[in-house]
Amino acid sequence: MGMTMTQKILAKHAGLNSVKAGQLIEAKLDIVMGNDITTAVALKEFKKTGAKKVFNEEKVAIVLDHFTPNKDIKAAEQCKSCRNFAWDMNIKNFFDVGQMGIEHALLPEKGIVVPGEVIIGADSHTCTYGALGAFSTGVGSTDMAIGMATGEAWFKVPSAIKFVLKNKPAKWISGKDIILHIIGKIGVDGALYRSMEFTGDGIKYLSMDDRFSMANMAIEAGAKNGIFPVDDKTIEYAKEHSTKTFEVFEADEDAQYDEVIEIDLSKLRPTVSFPHLPENTKTVDEAGKVYIDQAVIGSCTNGRLEDIKMAADILRGKQVDKKVRTIVIPATQKIYLDSIKLGYVEDIVNAGAIFSTPTCGPCLGGHMGILAAGEKAISTTNRNFVGRMGHVDSEVYLSSPAVAAASAIAGYIADPEKVMKGEF
Amino acid sequence: MGMTMTQKILAKHAGLNSVKAGQLIEAKLDIVMGNDITTAVALKEFKKTGAKKVFNEEKVAIVLDHFTPNKDIKAAEQCKSCRNFAWDMNIKNFFDVGQMGIEHALLPEKGIVVPGEVIIGADSHTCTYGALGAFSTGVGSTDMAIGMATGEAWFKVPSAIKFVLKNKPAKWISGKDIILHIIGKIGVDGALYRSMEFTGDGIKYLSMDDRFSMANMAIEAGAKNGIFPVDDKTIEYAKEHSTKTFEVFEADEDAQYDEVIEIDLSKLRPTVSFPHLPENTKTVDEAGKVYIDQAVIGSCTNGRLEDIKMAADILRGKQVDKKVRTIVIPATQKIYLDSIKLGYVEDIVNAGAIFSTPTCGPCLGGHMGILAAGEKAISTTNRNFVGRMGHVDSEVYLSSPAVAAASAIAGYIADPEKVMKGEF
Repeated sequence: MGMTMTQKILAKHAGLNSVKAGQLIEAKLDIVMGNDITTAVALKEFKKTGAKKVFNEEKVAIVLDHFTPNKDIKAAEQCKSCRNFAWDMNIKNFFDVGQMGIEHALLPEKGIVVPGEVIIGADSHTCTYGALGAFSTGVGSTDMAIGMATGEAWFKVPSAIKFVLKNKPAKWISGKDIILHIIGKIGVDGALYRSMEFTGDGIKYLSMDDRFSMANMAIEAGAKNGIFPVDDKTIEYAKEHSTKTFEVFEADEDAQYDEVIEIDLSKLRPTVSFPHLPENTKTVDEAGKVYIDQAVIGSCTNGRLEDIKMAADILRGKQVDKKVRTIVIPATQKIYLDSIKLGYVEDIVNAGAIFSTPTCGPCLGGHMGILAAGEKAISTTNRNFVGRMGHVDSEVYLSSPAVAAASAIAGYIADPEKVMKGEF
Repeated sequence: MGMTMTQKILAKHAGLNSVKAGQLIEAKLDIVMGNDITTAVALKEFKKTGAKKVFNEEKVAIVLDHFTPNKDIKAAEQCKSCRNFAWDMNIKNFFDVGQMGIEHALLPEKGIVVPGEVIIGADSHTCTYGALGAFSTGVGSTDMAIGMATGEAWFKVPSAIKFVLKNKPAKWISGKDIILHIIGKIGVDGALYRSMEFTGDGIKYLSMDDRFSMANMAIEAGAKNGIFPVDDKTIEYAKEHSTKTFEVFEADEDAQYDEVIEIDLSKLRPTVSFPHLPENTKTVDEAGKVYIDQAVIGSCTNGRLEDIKMAADILRGKQVDKKVRTIVIPATQKIYLDSIKLGYVEDIVNAGAIFSTPTCGPCLGGHMGILAAGEKAISTTNRNFVGRMGHVDSEVYLSSPAVAAASAIAGYIADPEKVMKGEF
């Protein structure tokens, strides 16, 4: 019986010729990752193992990105413990303020993760690297600790849903619209503990940034991982960013899938997830006039260069509504610099928005744009649970950068196409 | 008997021909200012007055700058109450995220304050506008409330110390070094409830940004206000930034001063205030090797364009020490944009520092760079009291932007001259 792409990567890393759904395996890890919140917990567990060093100094990555630059004393103490651990352990891929960015944008950008690898991270959105054709998934801090000590982790081999993406998406339709549409279709537990394997001729129209955004949100459908086939764009990206060698895996032709779902990308409309679940999707045409207090463009989902470009393209020469605080956060220092060089930052700031230093910040209610009771935000982040961005009586609406920027200008949730035509 | 410059401004605003030190007066206010922390308190007091509107919609300024972009739910609620008040009262000079900056940089930049005015602000560093030859001073939230309702405030007329600044300061010596030197000389209560009136031929060598930095820290010597004579630079600045008419006041020749202190600017060395008081000054030559964990360049004291330029000039083509988180914060959106256009931001980010959106942030232990126990920061901010930037067991060393940038590169408190020569 054939294997899915995910199963083939896992089999190889477990030293097995084949695996099947439901099987428990131990796999070798190419990268073990943590951030300032989860590493602070993991290093206490690590000490309990008795290990004197990490399994491989090159294969552990620690990124201080969630509550940094330190938002308060607690954050400062967490970062300090992570920093001391990273220095003690001589961890090569340690990223502090000034060198850093949001983990899931930074690791691909720095070439730390490449196709065909198995990566665990103590952060639920670790599934992002599936965009590169790697198996990556979020784990708890204890699994991170054991992973750092042993270089291995156990997995239950997932079954998969195959998503066949067809045709070319229209202008202003990005990876974010596609994944929100899919989550709206299958629900937040629609892919529970399964792989979401994306295939089809529509993929060739998706940039790497589109794919990162989609793989990133696989967890929002409950998936163990999301994964894309490796094509010329992937190989070009990996070679441009990394000196690591990598292996390309493909699903067997006779691989078995729990379900096959076809999505006609040409039919999609800009999509918004209404409070308080990512599955509560509506198109901008169905949204009604939802006035907003804040627009956030950034995060591990949508803080990449194409996302910033999309925002700048819409904001250029316009002004955000004076009642909408508009916060744009590039995901890494490199994206920050590139956005300056390409003139995006001037466009964004001239429009009355702010351009922050990289941080996860408001996405998880950390800092840099927290909501008061009764406030509504449109946001390119990945979760809109109750209280996610602040007060329990605030609301978060998830969208693409284009919709968020257009809504910042209109003052209410709006269609980018209409805002560009001045119809708002 | 002649009057000091401050006394002449106060007499005019009290409708009196003359005033003398110690006299209680009621003066008309040209601007009443508050920020997100103090306005939130003031508006409750304002309601108690029964006033239905502010005395003049053009003469109240509210700037959301301390805990913004909202660092937490409490900050979000404070900002929300300020915002609703500003909208209800139709306050013209209301500045929210995206339009804003740090109040004491923003008000002069926007031309809201000009020479000869009387300004109160519910923030201790309101004395900054003395750089323009205005009388300005910090008040509590209750005085702000009454000021908003009536357009008046009472003052006890201060006596003054005259500082005669002589000769030209050397390269890398800025207004910040001068004011730290003065505070080191007279102590944190050296000018208690008195005016610090700066005079002398050395003033012509001081830019407006130098003067803002000096007037800003008058409160750190306990002064009621700090004030500079209005010269060609002041008039040029005021005309460039404001359409308001203004009156120039000069001290009488026979004005009486409690003390006259001469400072030879050519003799000054880069100066650092050691923990935990601004008066604990040492020159960089006396500092010893104090290793630092963080460098902060910004605040109402030193977040202006010349400050950012000074940092960029030192950081350009170099790398900050990898153990020093280096946080540069422009004071306003305009300074942010100008810093991009002039290439400073690229220099700063390429050196491994971050460039934040405007906020008071770390200066008062708010957010954007809080210290853990045992950590040390060099900072261009204005106070180094116990726990000012975070944990009670952290330490803040105050300096100019040049010293802070040089120290970020060296990893310890360093002389800019030596760092530029590679001698560290």
